[in-house]
Amino acid sequence: MTDFTKAQAGHLYIVGVGPGAADLLTIRAINILSTVDVIIAPRSSLSAESLAVSVVRPYLRGQELVEHIYPMERDPLQTAQCWAQMADLAVQRLAQGLSVAHITIGDPLLYSTCAYLLEQISGRVPTENIHVVSGISALQAASAVIGESLLTQNDRLMLLPADDLAAVESALGCCETLVIYKIGERAQAVIEMIRRHGLAQNARLVCYAEQEREQIFTNLDDLNGNRLGYMSTMIVHVGHKSWS
Amino acid sequence: MTDFTKAQAGHLYIVGVGPGAADLLTIRAINILSTVDVIIAPRSSLSAESLAVSVVRPYLRGQELVEHIYPMERDPLQTAQCWAQMADLAVQRLAQGLSVAHITIGDPLLYSTCAYLLEQISGRVPTENIHVVSGISALQAASAVIGESLLTQNDRLMLLPADDLAAVESALGCCETLVIYKIGERAQAVIEMIRRHGLAQNARLVCYAEQEREQIFTNLDDLNGNRLGYMSTMIVHVGHKSWS
Repeated sequence: MTDFTKAQAGHLYIVGVGPGAADLLTIRAINILSTVDVIIAPRSSLSAESLAVSVVRPYLRGQELVEHIYPMERDPLQTAQCWAQMADLAVQRLAQGLSVAHITIGDPLLYSTCAYLLEQISGRVPTENIHVVSGISALQAASAVIGESLLTQNDRLMLLPADDLAAVESALGCCETLVIYKIGERAQAVIEMIRRHGLAQNARLVCYAEQEREQIFTNLDDLNGNRLGYMSTMIVHVGHKSWS
Repeated sequence: MTDFTKAQAGHLYIVGVGPGAADLLTIRAINILSTVDVIIAPRSSLSAESLAVSVVRPYLRGQELVEHIYPMERDPLQTAQCWAQMADLAVQRLAQGLSVAHITIGDPLLYSTCAYLLEQISGRVPTENIHVVSGISALQAASAVIGESLLTQNDRLMLLPADDLAAVESALGCCETLVIYKIGERAQAVIEMIRRHGLAQNARLVCYAEQEREQIFTNLDDLNGNRLGYMSTMIVHVGHKSWS
């Protein structure tokens, strides 16, 4: 198995730093981040600072920190160009014999910009020199603050973003637990649909789980038309499928 | 927010210890487990030792350790009785002013026996004294060792156990990424079905991710009829749903 006790020269680490609390990093993430030479941190063009950087700051020891500003516009071409630049930077540093970590909030393989870096770097760095370190995802953090089990026995979980409301509605018919990410501006439309399906009592909403501005709604009525931020997760307990 | 720097008297912690590697625990889990008075660890009647205990052993400091043997039979009544006993024990220790942690492999809210403890303890311990500490789940560990992103943009993920093959097959039609747990004895039937759908090239199989006996199959042909253990996770990249 890979040696994760410290970052190795010429190796790239894709590291999830969890939902936002500094104590929700894994030991493995800390071991890598505190010994790596270069840290690349994505920051959306709409944010004043990288959330991922603020989470790992307690563990930094003067490494080179590259804040990488990416466009929030959903333009595939612009996205590809932007990540091509980051891949170039990573490849260059790795070729110099440095170790490089790319950090991301949550888990790096669940709706993370790391996917674009992995794609762009493919074939340019030996596969055995690329490592992924998992992080606690928003779906785990949200269910933990609520304190309710997501799945038992034969239950099926569906995870999807709120963007396509028709997809969200049809998901209600094929899972026992539905987790909806990036509720944000779609909140009212999603909540109306959940009510229409008679599931309002079974829905929970957590905004910015494990961050300073965390908000928990175990009753959708408490929302009162409040505007929700981007990092909002809804959990809907649709039903239960027991052992047959 | 809850103080997770150390275990508090009279509080119950439901702690996920991750997939098996000691460095995949979070700082929060270690802070709780190294200061808690009593640790309850589930062990299946088929196992010689609790995997969860072996993972946390480096962090133990002489706490009371209760290994709790539960039946692997899928009998709802027996399951309920067994967990009622555990809840009694936890409630008793908490009433004595002790702190108690219940540990589990993976994440405590994803197919974990913790669900039964939470159910049985409901109403007997103040809600504000019950805390869940997330752990890295098998789905994250499996995708990390493969090194492939699970989801981007509008992709939908479905997570379910292999038990109900018809449910697995119908899931292929409503998600972009399918994650199948507990493949074990169902492996050949699941693989045949994946082949029938023309998705064999897109399927990965990881057995005992982050444990000593970890096995990774990025090509299903390499399986050669090998018998798979219980802790096997299949990831199928069904397709991609981009931003609309």
